[in-house]
Amino acid sequence: MRAVIPLKINNCKTRLSSVLSASEREDLTRAMLSDIVGTLRRSGVEVDLLSTSMEPFDLDVNQIYSDYELNESLNEYLSKTAKHRAPPPSILIVMSDVPLMGEEHVRYISERPEEIVIAPGRHGGTNVLYIKNPATFEVDYYGTSFLDHQAKAKEKNLTTHTYDSFYLSCDMDEPDDLIELLIHGRGEATMLLQKWGFKVRKDHMIDLVRETP
Amino acid sequence: MRAVIPLKINNCKTRLSSVLSASEREDLTRAMLSDIVGTLRRSGVEVDLLSTSMEPFDLDVNQIYSDYELNESLNEYLSKTAKHRAPPPSILIVMSDVPLMGEEHVRYISERPEEIVIAPGRHGGTNVLYIKNPATFEVDYYGTSFLDHQAKAKEKNLTTHTYDSFYLSCDMDEPDDLIELLIHGRGEATMLLQKWGFKVRKDHMIDLVRETP
Repeated sequence: MRAVIPLKINNCKTRLSSVLSASEREDLTRAMLSDIVGTLRRSGVEVDLLSTSMEPFDLDVNQIYSDYELNESLNEYLSKTAKHRAPPPSILIVMSDVPLMGEEHVRYISERPEEIVIAPGRHGGTNVLYIKNPATFEVDYYGTSFLDHQAKAKEKNLTTHTYDSFYLSCDMDEPDDLIELLIHGRGEATMLLQKWGFKVRKDHMIDLVRETP
Repeated sequence: MRAVIPLKINNCKTRLSSVLSASEREDLTRAMLSDIVGTLRRSGVEVDLLSTSMEPFDLDVNQIYSDYELNESLNEYLSKTAKHRAPPPSILIVMSDVPLMGEEHVRYISERPEEIVIAPGRHGGTNVLYIKNPATFEVDYYGTSFLDHQAKAKEKNLTTHTYDSFYLSCDMDEPDDLIELLIHGRGEATMLLQKWGFKVRKDHMIDLVRETP
């Protein structure tokens, strides 16, 4: 199994703009990436980083430059992997903002017998997608990609498994999502938020607050 | 194992007021309750309904009237169960707005060896809480109850397991949460939303829309 992480670093995570500056959003993205790559490498999985920027990352990954949009870029990656690697490895596509992924998740997926494993994000998203044979599948992110990926697998007669994981469902799109990172996280991304003064206010309702560190 | 579901039906789910009228919110709550009770009964689990109203429900449950607030009410239930039932059964506390709970979740929890199992909700909540011996534990809902329940278990030297489940993390607090019910649900609550004209708009972004049925 190989993992691929598509990454956009410039002007990333704009929906976090109300609580983080542009450079902080880039730093958070780098920290989440580092957490994810760390988990994958400790699990013995090689990582291809499909980046829209030429910036080199100080991480144990194979960096591939790709300026295409997400679907085009990943589908080119899948077809090239199927063509040029024999036998083609299984592919684990991990979004770059799922920092709560742990080694137990990678192990669970690698042991599933199905040809497609989908870990849904909230609102119909696909946060982690396992494809046993990259020659057999094409991705379709955006919109309700969870339903689209299920439909595509059915159309191609591939067995599927929905991975019912809360931690994999937590992507960091909006300020409120950072609460999960503060409560459940242990990695670099969580430490960065703490350094910046983010706290969870524990009144009757839960709220994200930022205090001057 | 017995299950207990605390229920407030009058003026419930006020954070859904922007998309549902008061009577629709009550109907949705009844439908979610029916889905949850159905799952528990099919799993062979008896259900105590801890309701703040005298209204009888046409469900296969043992209805208990309780006008206390949530924590007081549940803690009284736990201590009475520990005192009056010999041997005391394990208790599964299920919030009434977790309609995506399935039989596989009940089975998974019933097979865990730990004394406490916590299925987190978003924002530090506790959506499902398993207590092996009701004499040993007190609940503390509201705020970051996930952290509070973990701390309490540690203080009492009880073994704990965090149940990493996306479906159990989905409570129906805000309009956006209904999207999960439309995408992943199969029960009465989902059918009710569909009957009312709710749909998931599948553009680039995901949105909840309500069309006149």
